[in-house]
Amino acid sequence: MKIAIAQLNPTVGDLTGNAQRILEAAEKAFTAGCDLLLTTELSLTGYPPRDLLIRPSFIQAATEKLEQLARDLPSAIAVLVGTVQQNLDYQKNGGNPIYNSAALLEQGEIKQYFQKRLLPTYDVFDEDRYFEPGLESNFFVLENSGDRIKIGVTICEDLWNDESFWGKRNYACNPLAELAEKNIDLVVNLSASPYQVGKQKFRQSLISHSAKRYNIPILYANQVGGNDDLIFDGCSFAFNRNGDKILSLKDFDTDFEIIEFDSNIQDLTAISAQNQEINLTESEDQEIWLALVLGVKDYVQKCGFSQVILGLSGGIDSALVAAIATQALGKEKVLGVLMPSPYSSDHSIQDALELANNLGIQTQTLPIGDLMQTFDQTLEPMFAETPFGLAEENLQSRIRGTLLMAVSNKFGHLLLTTGNKSEMAVGYCTLYGDMNGGLAVIADVPKTRVYSLCSWFNQYHGKNIIPEHILTKPPSAELKPGQVDQDSLPPYEILDDILYRLIEKHQSLAEIVEAGHQESVVQKVIKLVMIAEFKRRQAAPGLKISDRAFGTGWRMPIAKILSEF
Amino acid sequence: MKIAIAQLNPTVGDLTGNAQRILEAAEKAFTAGCDLLLTTELSLTGYPPRDLLIRPSFIQAATEKLEQLARDLPSAIAVLVGTVQQNLDYQKNGGNPIYNSAALLEQGEIKQYFQKRLLPTYDVFDEDRYFEPGLESNFFVLENSGDRIKIGVTICEDLWNDESFWGKRNYACNPLAELAEKNIDLVVNLSASPYQVGKQKFRQSLISHSAKRYNIPILYANQVGGNDDLIFDGCSFAFNRNGDKILSLKDFDTDFEIIEFDSNIQDLTAISAQNQEINLTESEDQEIWLALVLGVKDYVQKCGFSQVILGLSGGIDSALVAAIATQALGKEKVLGVLMPSPYSSDHSIQDALELANNLGIQTQTLPIGDLMQTFDQTLEPMFAETPFGLAEENLQSRIRGTLLMAVSNKFGHLLLTTGNKSEMAVGYCTLYGDMNGGLAVIADVPKTRVYSLCSWFNQYHGKNIIPEHILTKPPSAELKPGQVDQDSLPPYEILDDILYRLIEKHQSLAEIVEAGHQESVVQKVIKLVMIAEFKRRQAAPGLKISDRAFGTGWRMPIAKILSEF
Repeated sequence: MKIAIAQLNPTVGDLTGNAQRILEAAEKAFTAGCDLLLTTELSLTGYPPRDLLIRPSFIQAATEKLEQLARDLPSAIAVLVGTVQQNLDYQKNGGNPIYNSAALLEQGEIKQYFQKRLLPTYDVFDEDRYFEPGLESNFFVLENSGDRIKIGVTICEDLWNDESFWGKRNYACNPLAELAEKNIDLVVNLSASPYQVGKQKFRQSLISHSAKRYNIPILYANQVGGNDDLIFDGCSFAFNRNGDKILSLKDFDTDFEIIEFDSNIQDLTAISAQNQEINLTESEDQEIWLALVLGVKDYVQKCGFSQVILGLSGGIDSALVAAIATQALGKEKVLGVLMPSPYSSDHSIQDALELANNLGIQTQTLPIGDLMQTFDQTLEPMFAETPFGLAEENLQSRIRGTLLMAVSNKFGHLLLTTGNKSEMAVGYCTLYGDMNGGLAVIADVPKTRVYSLCSWFNQYHGKNIIPEHILTKPPSAELKPGQVDQDSLPPYEILDDILYRLIEKHQSLAEIVEAGHQESVVQKVIKLVMIAEFKRRQAAPGLKISDRAFGTGWRMPIAKILSEF
Repeated sequence: MKIAIAQLNPTVGDLTGNAQRILEAAEKAFTAGCDLLLTTELSLTGYPPRDLLIRPSFIQAATEKLEQLARDLPSAIAVLVGTVQQNLDYQKNGGNPIYNSAALLEQGEIKQYFQKRLLPTYDVFDEDRYFEPGLESNFFVLENSGDRIKIGVTICEDLWNDESFWGKRNYACNPLAELAEKNIDLVVNLSASPYQVGKQKFRQSLISHSAKRYNIPILYANQVGGNDDLIFDGCSFAFNRNGDKILSLKDFDTDFEIIEFDSNIQDLTAISAQNQEINLTESEDQEIWLALVLGVKDYVQKCGFSQVILGLSGGIDSALVAAIATQALGKEKVLGVLMPSPYSSDHSIQDALELANNLGIQTQTLPIGDLMQTFDQTLEPMFAETPFGLAEENLQSRIRGTLLMAVSNKFGHLLLTTGNKSEMAVGYCTLYGDMNGGLAVIADVPKTRVYSLCSWFNQYHGKNIIPEHILTKPPSAELKPGQVDQDSLPPYEILDDILYRLIEKHQSLAEIVEAGHQESVVQKVIKLVMIAEFKRRQAAPGLKISDRAFGTGWRMPIAKILSEF
C-alpha cells in the first residue's frame, strides 16, 4: 500500500485556498496510485487559527468546506484532513464546543473523526482555550486488494508525552501507548510543530525512540511556512519499527512524498529510488537563516505586501535583516533608507551603501539633521535649560521611525524592524522609533547570534557580502558623539548568557550568579528586563526561533513589583 | 462566630507588600474578635501573576512568604490566603506544577490547602497554562467555645458553573453541588473577578441564586484594583440561605467588613449597625467612570509614575481622558499638551484650553507647522509629485506622538493615549502617532459611550466641565481641511452596533445584516476590523470594561485570509 505525505503551507483562515491545496495533493497522490494521503494538523484552517475559532460562523464554514472537499476529492483515495470538529455534547456536558481533529475523507464522505487528546497550553499554545480534548485514541482500517492495515491516528502533541525519552510527563495519558495495545500496524501523525533551534533533531529523536519503544512504524506530517510569529519547518518523516528513518521531507519548504507499507514485513519501506537520508542542515546558523527567510517571505506575502523597506544604519542588525529580506523577496523588493544625523560616523554611511551595493538593493538617503533642529526649536518652550539626554536620543530614533512609516504609507511597502533579542530584552531600543515596523525579523535572535549569522552568511557565499567592517566595529546606536552599546550594557557575550538563563531557563538570580556571573551585573540585567516590559508589549510580532521568544508565548505583567528572583 | 472579609488591592508580584496587607487585615480582624479572615484569590501574589508563575524561584519565594506569614499572624485567628501551592505529584503524574489554592493559616502553621477546580481559559484567562485543577471540593471546621461550623472553600470560577442560572455549563463538575452534599454550613469564595459593564449585578444574581438553590449561605471576597488592562471592582458580599444579600462591600475601593455566623439559625446574619443594602451604582456610565478612574490610578501608581501627560486636541476623546486622569490623580498631576497644526480649527484650541481651565490642569502648546514643513522637505526627494494623502495625514499624528514622547522621556511623565474602541476596531488611528502611550484609557469604550460618559460627567457635577461645544461639534481628526470622521466611517450609532455584534457577540455577516444593517456597510466594517489587526497588536494596554476588549483576551492572527464570515 502506498501512502503520500503532503507537507502543506496553509494560510490561516483561508478555507478555500487550503482546501484547494489539499485537493491538488490528493489528485497527485491518486494519480501516483496511493491509497492514503496524510496532511498536517488543521490543514483546512491553517495553524494556529487562534480566536477565529471563537466565531461560530468560522466553524460552520470550515464544516461545510470539509463536506465539499470530501465530495471533490478522488473517491478511491482516503485523505486525512486536519480540521475543527463540533463537540455535540457541549451543551449537555460542558467543556469546549470544538475538537482539534483529523477527518478521514473517503468515497465522497467524512468517514471518521479522530480527536486530538493532548492539548498544549504552554509557551505559544492556547489549545485549552478552544478545544475539548479527545477521550480515546482510535484507528481505521485501510484496505486494498486483500491488504488490510490498521492505522492509528494521532495529532501533534499526542506523540510528545513519552517520559522514557525526555524524563518529563506533561499529561496523564500517553496516546501512543494506548494505540500500541490495540495492535496497530502503523501510526500517522498530523502536526503543526513550530520551529526552534535544534527542534528538528529533537523531534526526530523522540519519534524514532517511540517507534522503537512501541515497535510501530510512524509517519509524521508537519506543516511548513510562516504564520505571524511562528515558523513551521516541515521536516516531515517516516520511521520504521526499528526506529530507522526511512523518509525525510524538505525543511522550510512545501513537499510531497510517497512511501510504501509492505504487508509482508508489516512495516514502512522506502520506495526504491527514494533518498532515504536527506540530512538535516548541519549548521545551526544555516538552520536559523532558512527559518527567518521563510518567516519573512510568508509574512510579507500572506499580509498582501510585495515590497519591504528598512532603515540601514550601517550597523550589523540592519545588515542582517537586509540580507534576509533580499533572499526572501528578491533584491528588487527591498528598499534601504539611510537617515544619517550629525552624530552618524562617515563609516556608517559607507558601510550601509557598500552593503546595499553588495546585495543589489536600492537605497534612499534622508538626512535627519534639519528635523532634529526643528524638534529642538518646537520643544524649546519646555526643554530650555535641560541637558541633552535620553529624550533627545530617542527623538532621533523616532524621527527615523516616522520617516520610514511615511515612506511605508506612501508606497505601500511593509516596514521591517531590525532590533535583536538582546536589545528587546533590556529595552535598549526606542518605542515608536527603531521599534517601528510590521515584522520584527530578528527580535528572537540574540546579538551574539546576529554576529554568527552574518559570519556564516559571508562564509557560505565565499565573500564579504556583509562588509567586514560592519562585523568588526564596536556596536553603537550613534545617538550621541562617541557612543557605543557597551557604555550602557555588559559585553554581549555576558549579557546574552545571562539573558538565556533568565528567559529560556527561568533561572533565579542565585542560579545565574552560581553559573559564574557577577551579582551586580545580573541584578542590573534582571531589572532592565523587568522594566522593559512596556516596550515589548507594544513591539511588532517577531519571528520565533528559540524556546522562549518575546511574543505570543511571553505573558508578563507590566505593572508589578518583583522583589524576589 | 465572626468572620471578616478583606477586600484587598494587591500588586502583582509584590509578595512582601501583599503579605503586609493581609497581616494588617488579620490584626484588625483579630482585634475585632473575629474567628476567621477571608481574603481574595491569589491575595499573596496578586492576580493575575501571569508568566511570573513560570519562574520556579517565584513559586519558591511565595511558598516561603506564606510560611513566614503564618508565623507572623495573630495565632488565635484563622486566615484564608489565596496563594500558589506546589503540586507534589507533578513529576510522577504529569500535569502542571502548581495549584491556584487557598491556604488556611492558623496557630502559626499552614493547616490545610484548598485547590481551585474550575480553571477558566476563555477571554483574558489562561489558568490551564499554569495550574493543575483540584480534584476535590473540601471544607474545614471552625470552632469557638462550643460553636462548630463546617466551611466549604471555593475559588472564583468554582461558583460559576451553575447551568440552572444561565443555561450554560463550561465544565463537567459543579464544586458547589459537591460541597452541598457534604453538609456544609457555609461556603466562602476567594475571587479575582474582573470588572465589565453589568457584571456586578450579574455576579450577585448568580451567587444569590446558588445560595438559595443549595440552601447554603455564601461569603464572597473579590479583589479590587487595577492590574494592567484588568480592573477588579471589589463588590464583595454575603448572601444568606434564602439568597438575601445581607452584606455589601464597596465598589472600586479597598474595604473591610465583619459578618456573623449565627449557630442558632445556622446562617449568616448582618451585624446590627451594618448597612445591609449598600446599593450598587445605578448608572452604567457612573460604573464605567469609577472603573476607569481606578484603572488609571492603579496603573500609574503600580508602574511607579506620579504624573501623566496627554495630548489635548479639543476633541471629545482627549477631553474624557483628561477628566478621568484628573479625578484619578489630582489636577496637579495632569499636563495637557496642545499641538495645533495649520489644519486645526480655532475652536479646537479654544475648546481644549477651556477644558483644561475647567479641570484646573496645566497646559503647554507646541505648534507642529514647522515640523510638518521640515518633514515635507526631508521627504521631498521621495515624495515629490505625489498627492497629499494618508502618509501626510499620519505624519501629523506621528509628529504629535513624538513630541508627547519627548516630553514623557524628559520629565518622566506617563503618556496616556486617548483612542476609543470604535477607532481601535476599524483602525481609524495612527500607529506610532495618536496610539502612543503607556496606557490606553478608553480603548474599550465605544465612541457612543464616550459621549454618554461625558454627558453623565457634566450632569453629575451640575455644570459643563467638559465644554458643551466638544460634545456637540462633529468629531474630526483635523488632519486635512474640513475633514470629519463620517467622511470615512458610518455614523457612530451604526458603527458601534455593528462592532458590538461582531466583537462581543461573535455574529456573522448574515446575522448582523439580519439585525437591520446594510450589507455593504457591514462588509466594509468587517474588512476594516480584520485589516487593523496589525495596529492593535502594537497598541498600549487598554483598560477593559466590556465582555471582550482588544487586549490580552483578543488573540487574532494578523496574516490571514478570512473569506467566510
